[in-house]
Amino acid sequence: MAKIKRYSLKRPKSTKALHQAPGTMTYVGHKESKETLLEVIDYNKDHYQRFTSKSLEDAFKFEEENNITWINIDGLNNTSEIEKLGKYYDLHPLILEDIVNTGQRPKIDEYPDYIFIVAKMLYYNGDGMINNEHLSMVVGKDYVLTFQEADGDVFEGVRERIKNSKGRVRNNGADYLMFALLDAIIDNYFAVVDDISDKIEIFEDRIFQARSDENLVLEIQDLKRTILRIRRAVFPLREVVNRLLKSKSEIIEEKTGSYISDLHDHMIQISENIDLYREMIRSLLDMYMSTISNKMNEVMKVLTIMASIFIPLTFIAGIYGMNFEYMPELQWKYSYFVLWGVMLLLFVGMLIYFKRKKWL
Amino acid sequence: MAKIKRYSLKRPKSTKALHQAPGTMTYVGHKESKETLLEVIDYNKDHYQRFTSKSLEDAFKFEEENNITWINIDGLNNTSEIEKLGKYYDLHPLILEDIVNTGQRPKIDEYPDYIFIVAKMLYYNGDGMINNEHLSMVVGKDYVLTFQEADGDVFEGVRERIKNSKGRVRNNGADYLMFALLDAIIDNYFAVVDDISDKIEIFEDRIFQARSDENLVLEIQDLKRTILRIRRAVFPLREVVNRLLKSKSEIIEEKTGSYISDLHDHMIQISENIDLYREMIRSLLDMYMSTISNKMNEVMKVLTIMASIFIPLTFIAGIYGMNFEYMPELQWKYSYFVLWGVMLLLFVGMLIYFKRKKWL
Amino acid sequence: MAKIKRYSLKRPKSTKALHQAPGTMTYVGHKESKETLLEVIDYNKDHYQRFTSKSLEDAFKFEEENNITWINIDGLNNTSEIEKLGKYYDLHPLILEDIVNTGQRPKIDEYPDYIFIVAKMLYYNGDGMINNEHLSMVVGKDYVLTFQEADGDVFEGVRERIKNSKGRVRNNGADYLMFALLDAIIDNYFAVVDDISDKIEIFEDRIFQARSDENLVLEIQDLKRTILRIRRAVFPLREVVNRLLKSKSEIIEEKTGSYISDLHDHMIQISENIDLYREMIRSLLDMYMSTISNKMNEVMKVLTIMASIFIPLTFIAGIYGMNFEYMPELQWKYSYFVLWGVMLLLFVGMLIYFKRKKWL
Amino acid sequence: MAKIKRYSLKRPKSTKALHQAPGTMTYVGHKESKETLLEVIDYNKDHYQRFTSKSLEDAFKFEEENNITWINIDGLNNTSEIEKLGKYYDLHPLILEDIVNTGQRPKIDEYPDYIFIVAKMLYYNGDGMINNEHLSMVVGKDYVLTFQEADGDVFEGVRERIKNSKGRVRNNGADYLMFALLDAIIDNYFAVVDDISDKIEIFEDRIFQARSDENLVLEIQDLKRTILRIRRAVFPLREVVNRLLKSKSEIIEEKTGSYISDLHDHMIQISENIDLYREMIRSLLDMYMSTISNKMNEVMKVLTIMASIFIPLTFIAGIYGMNFEYMPELQWKYSYFVLWGVMLLLFVGMLIYFKRKKWL
Amino acid sequence: MAKIKRYSLKRPKSTKALHQAPGTMTYVGHKESKETLLEVIDYNKDHYQRFTSKSLEDAFKFEEENNITWINIDGLNNTSEIEKLGKYYDLHPLILEDIVNTGQRPKIDEYPDYIFIVAKMLYYNGDGMINNEHLSMVVGKDYVLTFQEADGDVFEGVRERIKNSKGRVRNNGADYLMFALLDAIIDNYFAVVDDISDKIEIFEDRIFQARSDENLVLEIQDLKRTILRIRRAVFPLREVVNRLLKSKSEIIEEKTGSYISDLHDHMIQISENIDLYREMIRSLLDMYMSTISNKMNEVMKVLTIMASIFIPLTFIAGIYGMNFEYMPELQWKYSYFVLWGVMLLLFVGMLIYFKRKKWL
Repeated sequence: MAKIKRYSLKRPKSTKALHQAPGTMTYVGHKESKETLLEVIDYNKDHYQRFTSKSLEDAFKFEEENNITWINIDGLNNTSEIEKLGKYYDLHPLILEDIVNTGQRPKIDEYPDYIFIVAKMLYYNGDGMINNEHLSMVVGKDYVLTFQEADGDVFEGVRERIKNSKGRVRNNGADYLMFALLDAIIDNYFAVVDDISDKIEIFEDRIFQARSDENLVLEIQDLKRTILRIRRAVFPLREVVNRLLKSKSEIIEEKTGSYISDLHDHMIQISENIDLYREMIRSLLDMYMSTISNKMNEVMKVLTIMASIFIPLTFIAGIYGMNFEYMPELQWKYSYFVLWGVMLLLFVGMLIYFKRKKWL
Repeated sequence: MAKIKRYSLKRPKSTKALHQAPGTMTYVGHKESKETLLEVIDYNKDHYQRFTSKSLEDAFKFEEENNITWINIDGLNNTSEIEKLGKYYDLHPLILEDIVNTGQRPKIDEYPDYIFIVAKMLYYNGDGMINNEHLSMVVGKDYVLTFQEADGDVFEGVRERIKNSKGRVRNNGADYLMFALLDAIIDNYFAVVDDISDKIEIFEDRIFQARSDENLVLEIQDLKRTILRIRRAVFPLREVVNRLLKSKSEIIEEKTGSYISDLHDHMIQISENIDLYREMIRSLLDMYMSTISNKMNEVMKVLTIMASIFIPLTFIAGIYGMNFEYMPELQWKYSYFVLWGVMLLLFVGMLIYFKRKKWL
Repeated sequence: MAKIKRYSLKRPKSTKALHQAPGTMTYVGHKESKETLLEVIDYNKDHYQRFTSKSLEDAFKFEEENNITWINIDGLNNTSEIEKLGKYYDLHPLILEDIVNTGQRPKIDEYPDYIFIVAKMLYYNGDGMINNEHLSMVVGKDYVLTFQEADGDVFEGVRERIKNSKGRVRNNGADYLMFALLDAIIDNYFAVVDDISDKIEIFEDRIFQARSDENLVLEIQDLKRTILRIRRAVFPLREVVNRLLKSKSEIIEEKTGSYISDLHDHMIQISENIDLYREMIRSLLDMYMSTISNKMNEVMKVLTIMASIFIPLTFIAGIYGMNFEYMPELQWKYSYFVLWGVMLLLFVGMLIYFKRKKWL
Repeated sequence: MAKIKRYSLKRPKSTKALHQAPGTMTYVGHKESKETLLEVIDYNKDHYQRFTSKSLEDAFKFEEENNITWINIDGLNNTSEIEKLGKYYDLHPLILEDIVNTGQRPKIDEYPDYIFIVAKMLYYNGDGMINNEHLSMVVGKDYVLTFQEADGDVFEGVRERIKNSKGRVRNNGADYLMFALLDAIIDNYFAVVDDISDKIEIFEDRIFQARSDENLVLEIQDLKRTILRIRRAVFPLREVVNRLLKSKSEIIEEKTGSYISDLHDHMIQISENIDLYREMIRSLLDMYMSTISNKMNEVMKVLTIMASIFIPLTFIAGIYGMNFEYMPELQWKYSYFVLWGVMLLLFVGMLIYFKRKKWL
Repeated sequence: MAKIKRYSLKRPKSTKALHQAPGTMTYVGHKESKETLLEVIDYNKDHYQRFTSKSLEDAFKFEEENNITWINIDGLNNTSEIEKLGKYYDLHPLILEDIVNTGQRPKIDEYPDYIFIVAKMLYYNGDGMINNEHLSMVVGKDYVLTFQEADGDVFEGVRERIKNSKGRVRNNGADYLMFALLDAIIDNYFAVVDDISDKIEIFEDRIFQARSDENLVLEIQDLKRTILRIRRAVFPLREVVNRLLKSKSEIIEEKTGSYISDLHDHMIQISENIDLYREMIRSLLDMYMSTISNKMNEVMKVLTIMASIFIPLTFIAGIYGMNFEYMPELQWKYSYFVLWGVMLLLFVGMLIYFKRKKWL
């Protein structure tokens, strides 16, 4: 079963814990990307260039006029490099802390020169597990910086479209790139949540076939925990998009507004889906319980019918197995056959009784 | 049992999925209407004309002055035709995307020249299933465009009234036609929801008659899912109607306001009904569980009474079935009869005991 | 058991349904009062006159200056008469529709010349059933029109007070009469809801006496449904009273304000009571379930004790009932008595064991 | 067990019921204080006088300048006396109605010359029952009137402090006396609610010791009802205190404000406690149910183990108790001993099997 | 198991109870720190001095210009000393009362010259119990006073950083020290709440291994109570931080604002975690119940299979153990072997039957 990785629940700061100054930049995630990887995509309507490197210096020389520059950093444990980038783009120290603090919930901070967004990427990785990856995004007038925990993300489609000059992305500014990235993230939410829906239907079937399958409860509980965690990753982003919608920042051009409004619609829809599935998961356990009760009822009936029929008959046989010297019936020639008759009558009577009670 | 079609839960966009540009127009519904059908109704107080065609060009030449034109399109997979229509009426690209995106939840967007409304039609189709059909509506000063997934809808009554010049529809503008169409949709909500109420009462009866009917739980769960999905289709429309009520768009004439206020009343009523039935469905399972427990109790009592009476008696019979050489009772002449007496006393004592415990 | 009549849940409009124009006046209730009855009470400080008729014309000639006229119509299926009244008092067509639409939830509409109020009368009729009757009220400067589904209502006290010139009603205007009528309705809510409270206590007692009384669950469910329906009839009136309180209509005189504020207090109180009883009904089923479980436990213990004691003893007896030729114990003279001793020890040991487990 | 008296749920007005004018003053409580008792405490910084009487006339002559006069009336059934007092202090008729209407929920009404407060006193009386007594308070510039249902209240501490000139009460005005009285009421809420907390812990212990104690469920239900009723008596007072806090009445001096803010803190705290205990009571029944299930499981295991071991053994013994003439084993010399061996093996095998299943 | 100390639920004031004036300063906590300990830390950018004493007079002489003075008092039962401090810093009497009233919930009061904050420190003490310690904080322009119930707190990290001039604390004012202390408190909330998360996972494992472990329910209930109490200690602080964020007090410098905003983020996160864990604890009991039911089902099946197979066989053996003189089968030579065959057939038939029912 796909499990959402549990580290999403651990609060990183608690590893820094009790004796460290606030504002210290410490990577607290669990993803070990051996090295920080840098990817620069520089484009405008007519121009496209892509470059990967391990050194920030390579990135800075790419900065040209009239181009949109998207710098994507995979791996957050090389804090000194990120700090260098922060200095170059003049980022606030608290932003740098949030970039590496994977426990930070989705949020948006507007600064005069840039917008800072934290979101969670949810996507299935190779082994069917849901990856919950911390993503920070700094959106400036002509650049977008994205910081991820490890390589592997949900942005392949965006990269393709920039490269092939498909869609509107090449004709628009950094704010449209931000929208395209958020849209890719939210599309993946739908994929993950739709998958939950499929799982619920599978569970319903299993509940009715299962022969006292103990793990089922554990798996339902796990699904419940998964949806609760997805909820926690997704719901704050709704507020983020809502604030983007109302933002008066100069970075967001007016024509991008209707696209963000579209994002907002999707966030409301995904939120409703999550709550719907949550309620349906909740009722899975109820179904399971009633199925068990039903089966136990079945079992008890079989036992009761068998016992009720044969225990009295066995008693009768026991009577005539007694060794008293004076038992008049024993000598009578037809006793045995009469007894068989009596027993048969009892047997049939019982059957009729249980039939009437609708137990058969 | 009537099942709401499950595709209503699948989000279309997730089929377009991860590598496509936002704003691309892709039909993602599951209804396969082989071809897009066009129906044009053109009317004013004195004039009525109806025309069906497969080509948009036929529709455009119908546009005359002083008339209300209602163009209804059945089938959304012919996106190029819809795009043509969009160009003719100057519709925003995002509207075109929403028209074919059957996963879009009910909403309203006000543009300077028209109002765009998305709603869900719920109605019973031939085989007793609830049809959940995506409907988009563009309402202009003198035209209404409606886009449906397939033919078959809830607007027959409206068509009749236009044709026969019954009611107020022929004497009013496009905004009144919009009201009449929404009213028809909401009337069908009531029909569908009232049907849920009937089903709940049937379930209550079945719960008390059922002899460990396992499917019952599955069906209750299904009913629960149905009401949750109806809720999701219906509730956003309440907000839509509320915003229509407060709308300052010039398209809606003042005298239509009181009719929309009437729609609003109905939406509140249907919402309350849905939540009421939801709570009653929730308690169906509780009833079922307690009924099962009750029956198991009954079964256990029968078993316990039978076993408690005959097991001790059988033991006594077993005693005198032993083959010890020295068992004084065996030789005594009246042993057998005395034993019968003792057993009878035990039997009666047990009966009295269970009577007192109110198990009989 | 008193059942609230189920028609209160059916939405009348769904009978008119899908092919009728909105705004059509159709009586959709289930109460068949053979004929529409008219009652006119005309009064002022010094004057009192009461008149019943079947014809509206009789009523109109009663209209005199300086008097308060209360016209009460019993029976809503004679729509043409009501329409006539509507024309006389210049009522909006949508009001007329709401008067006969018994599915309309409680609401208030303020018009320049009158206030239109819809409420539900809940009261016990002869056979202990809760009557849920649709009441519409039009309050003008010097008249009050009330429309009921059938004869029989909660206004007898008000009629008495007008007749006997008791209380303040004769010295005040039409707005005070409106208050007095609403007060009478709300007083009956209290009576109905207090009765629910009594029923809950009776159920609690029954739960603890009942010997697997299957109907109990059905009756609890029924009580639950009753309170949910009462809730639906009562809660919207709270909003109605609240809006009356804030109303700036000239029809409501300032001195009546404090009386309406009193109504508001009562509505909050009744709402709280309803929610309190709702929660207590919800826990009735929990109590019932735990009582059943408790009883089953009791049953199982008896079975287990009986079986655990006698099955081993029967086995021992069975051993010495075997017919092997070489069974040394059989010949030994004291075997039988020793065996009795062993069995007695086993028996007592078992008793002690169960005593220690607190099963006895 | 301490039960809150049930009359707190009966709405008094429903006894007046359906044929009485609103605004009529009728005592509807259940406390029968034979006669109305009057207690007057008149004080200022230097002066203290206390007087009890049965006649109001005695009270009025006490009214002196520059003194705070606290008149406390025990017993509400002598409505004519209260009316006399109302006339003397010029109280609104609706206040007089609320004073004797013990069903009135806590509220505050501000009048130009006085503040009218309704509250509920909760306190333990002699026999461990929670007393729920209706208290009305009229606070003027230099007087406080309190109306109680019967003698016995929570104000002894306040009386002591006035008498002994302890605390700030003698140096402050009528508003401080009001605060002191409310503070005494709220202190008693804490005492009552803390007691609920103790009871919950006692129940938890009883649940784990109880041997199918049926009354437990009834008592838990009773505790639940008690907390729901306390909640209903307490929660509205929070709103009362909140409105006192924001009041701009001249009767409340500025320096008293911080004390009322203190009351508000306490009301929030008591509300939180009540909701916390409510949730814990709710889970008591869950605990109880799971304990019962656990015990039944235990019982069933004993039964199953006993039956599974001895029923097969008894069958084997039964086989060799048969009287067939040709049963070769019967003649064989060691059959009996071999059989014992086989049975022992079976017995041990069963034990191992159950051990492995962890049933032993 | 770690239990939160129960005194956190007792309201201290109820010990003062019913006959004491409000505003009296009485220590009502349960922590007995034998003596009040005073710790003074005086610092600025260049200067650091630490001093502990039992006398306040020592503290006052430390007050120097341009320095931040942090006075920490451990132990609240020496009220006279605290009163002395209150006089020196001109604290309002109600503040002094709240300092020693350990039942006071977290709150913030802004005075012109200082801010008064009440919070709860949650931390694990030596024996694995959660300590819930009342903390009051008075923050002035250049001083911070903290009052704790006993020695042992969560501020060691802050003390270290001040001493070693690490972090920003030495370069900032008293408001930053306040932030650092609150941050330390909240960091400990995370530690405590993360621990709850670990416990939940341990419980899940135990539930599936446990063999009718009765204490499990009690422990789950205890965990539930713990999280409810943590919630009550933590949630009001969120409001406190929120009000700090919006505060316009001159004591809080603008640059500290972004740090407080960081606190606010953390408070929202911790609140979400608490509610998430609360829901998961709630479902633990459901899991437990379904596991028990599952096991009982298992037990019942074993019993039913054993009984259903052997009871009929035993009956057959009983038949041929009867002592009738005329039983033809007894004399027939192959009866015994045929009977074995019949029994074997029955046995196998039963096995197949149960196999088909999926009980085996």
